[in-house]
Amino acid sequence: MTQPLRLGIAGLGTVGAGVVAIVQRHAGLIAARGGRPVEISAVSARSRGKDRGVALGDYDWEDDPVTLARRPDVDVFVELMGGSDDPARAATQAALASGKDVVTANKALLALHGHGLAQMAEEADRLIRFEAAVAGGIPVIKALTEGLAANEVTRVLGVMNGTCNYILTRMEDAGLTYDEAFAEADGLGYLEADPQLDVGGIDAGHKLALLAAIAFGTEVDFAGVELEGIGAITIEDIRQAADMGFRIKLLGVAQMTGRGLEQRMSPCLVPATSPLGQLQGGTNMVVLEGDQVGQIVLRGPGAGAGPTASAVMADVIDIARGIRVPTFGLPAARLRKVRAARAAVPAPYYLRMALLDKPGALAKVARVLGDNGISIDRMRQYGHEATTAPVLIVTHKTTRAALDDALAGFAETNVVAGPPVALRIESV
Amino acid sequence: MTQPLRLGIAGLGTVGAGVVAIVQRHAGLIAARGGRPVEISAVSARSRGKDRGVALGDYDWEDDPVTLARRPDVDVFVELMGGSDDPARAATQAALASGKDVVTANKALLALHGHGLAQMAEEADRLIRFEAAVAGGIPVIKALTEGLAANEVTRVLGVMNGTCNYILTRMEDAGLTYDEAFAEADGLGYLEADPQLDVGGIDAGHKLALLAAIAFGTEVDFAGVELEGIGAITIEDIRQAADMGFRIKLLGVAQMTGRGLEQRMSPCLVPATSPLGQLQGGTNMVVLEGDQVGQIVLRGPGAGAGPTASAVMADVIDIARGIRVPTFGLPAARLRKVRAARAAVPAPYYLRMALLDKPGALAKVARVLGDNGISIDRMRQYGHEATTAPVLIVTHKTTRAALDDALAGFAETNVVAGPPVALRIESV
Repeated sequence: MTQPLRLGIAGLGTVGAGVVAIVQRHAGLIAARGGRPVEISAVSARSRGKDRGVALGDYDWEDDPVTLARRPDVDVFVELMGGSDDPARAATQAALASGKDVVTANKALLALHGHGLAQMAEEADRLIRFEAAVAGGIPVIKALTEGLAANEVTRVLGVMNGTCNYILTRMEDAGLTYDEAFAEADGLGYLEADPQLDVGGIDAGHKLALLAAIAFGTEVDFAGVELEGIGAITIEDIRQAADMGFRIKLLGVAQMTGRGLEQRMSPCLVPATSPLGQLQGGTNMVVLEGDQVGQIVLRGPGAGAGPTASAVMADVIDIARGIRVPTFGLPAARLRKVRAARAAVPAPYYLRMALLDKPGALAKVARVLGDNGISIDRMRQYGHEATTAPVLIVTHKTTRAALDDALAGFAETNVVAGPPVALRIESV
Repeated sequence: MTQPLRLGIAGLGTVGAGVVAIVQRHAGLIAARGGRPVEISAVSARSRGKDRGVALGDYDWEDDPVTLARRPDVDVFVELMGGSDDPARAATQAALASGKDVVTANKALLALHGHGLAQMAEEADRLIRFEAAVAGGIPVIKALTEGLAANEVTRVLGVMNGTCNYILTRMEDAGLTYDEAFAEADGLGYLEADPQLDVGGIDAGHKLALLAAIAFGTEVDFAGVELEGIGAITIEDIRQAADMGFRIKLLGVAQMTGRGLEQRMSPCLVPATSPLGQLQGGTNMVVLEGDQVGQIVLRGPGAGAGPTASAVMADVIDIARGIRVPTFGLPAARLRKVRAARAAVPAPYYLRMALLDKPGALAKVARVLGDNGISIDRMRQYGHEATTAPVLIVTHKTTRAALDDALAGFAETNVVAGPPVALRIESV
């Protein structure tokens, strides 16, 4: 066991450079804990000349990550390029086919192709590990796969995109509009090149799909995640939610229902005093609920060089220690293919709409709700803006299907201007 | 790998019965995740006849846990008897000597004899696992040993005794005195047979010593934990702390200093808005800080049949999966013996004392602080009670040594009645 474990690192962005830095700085500590030294044989990135703040001179350079993945002096292929398709996918496949274990931070790759890759890894008797793909430095994959292994998991939920939580927090704290908070986050470099990955909930949806596969023993199914971004949230929504004791979070929720697997990534109201409600700024939080353990809450940095590289290296040290667990916690053949259930679990909803200033308008809206079996918990109509009056309604528990029928019904009343905002109130 | 993993369970209290219940209820799930079935060969407890709410008829009974630990049909000895000495110690030693792995929830045993047992396990090429010994259902041993393995851990802190946190929360929320809250906790069955284990900080101190050994790669050293219970805390302290934006928690803190390993379990003030400050009731919270990852917060149930048995079974499933990590994360011979540093890290302190109603009394107290190099951040003297006036002082950062000198100095002024309360203000 004193043979070094040799890494090939593809991708030298923030995270890749962070991994190199840890391997260099903590060589002694890693060797002691892992039971064998960890070394870097070769690295690969798009641009060779760039200064990345770490010394790379001791490592071979490969222009092609696929070539890197196949090198005989690489035991573990560390995939930090990102992107759901080639070259990340091809290089990962090449690594597995060449008998290497794979450690990756690539949530998109695994959310879209995870099941096939897990099968391939298993056929090759190799591992894919991805602690860094979900919630950055929080060891949530390990907590779920290993720490809660004796539980039937009942629900997984969390705030898994720090950028969205930063925007929502700034809207609340500084009274910024969505556009202002978005611009601020952009200026700080918090947004992905395609901001929809963040504010559209896609990035967080990838993470949720990975957690759900482990939690419920199912084939990873990103297509089954119901996605809704934060772009429609206004300061007014945030204020009204606060008035009622709630905060708005881009919340991922996965749970198994009698009708299939429900996976949602959408802005929700959560109690302001709950751990999720109290989460401010760019921090991530994942809540794991199991039939034996009850509720476990994990909180920590969801991004950044140090935290993400910490998670990558935890996977590497696990491999050095000989820890070998199937990709999604079960042999790939045992993962069940289940159908997606759209918001099967009933919940109360927060509704905001602009009512045209016509006699009987409110009664028409109330009747639509009643006709769809939705009862009203509270309603508030406040200060007119020109020809429309903003109306807020909090419903009692209802199904999403009934709510959708009601939303369609509102449109037919001709007293509601524009599409209403409908936010689920999640019990946490 | 399809050979069943066979357990021998010693101790059938709440946790033991919970473990039996999980093995029975989740047999399929455990076999799928662990890669092999988990079975119970034999059990042991003090009283055979007692109804424990689970069916035990399929298992052999042993009156003597040492005999149980040596049975050839036991692969893993599950020690849930508790107590730092025999029979728990003898049975654990017998299990290791007979080639069994050991899973235990026994913090006292490991805090006092952990290093010797870890050495013995290593010589026998066996494991001791103890996820359930710290913070109940929270997978904190795993998070620290494996999840943060690539970090130099800088600090570990937490609220690890739910009973104490319950008492302090009830004092704050319901305005109960310490004695009233204690009696309430006792009535609810929250207290150990010897309540000092809880309110004296001993139980939580055991847990802290285990975390510190893993975090800093040191021989477990419970004798080096500075212990202070919550018995001296008054409602007034809680109210005054709240006024300044703090809450009082029985807080464990471990960190490596230039002068040795500092381990403290004592009531501290923490910001009311911090995750630790927001922790109410019987829940546990552990905060792990590493040089790469920053701060990770773990929150969950610290006691109870389900949560504790969940942690025990996570260890069992790890063993079924072939996960083998040294007891404290490093080979026992590599654990360093370090000296204990008493409160080496400076901090501000909250002081409450009763001042005799004499001219110049406050000036004398202030001079003692000044003479010991301690400067005052705020001071408040309020409504007289008979012949003494309560005085509150918040100091700027000072060492505990300087503070102790000042406390001794107060006694010599003859203007301070009784011993002052001195609570550290911990930055979290």
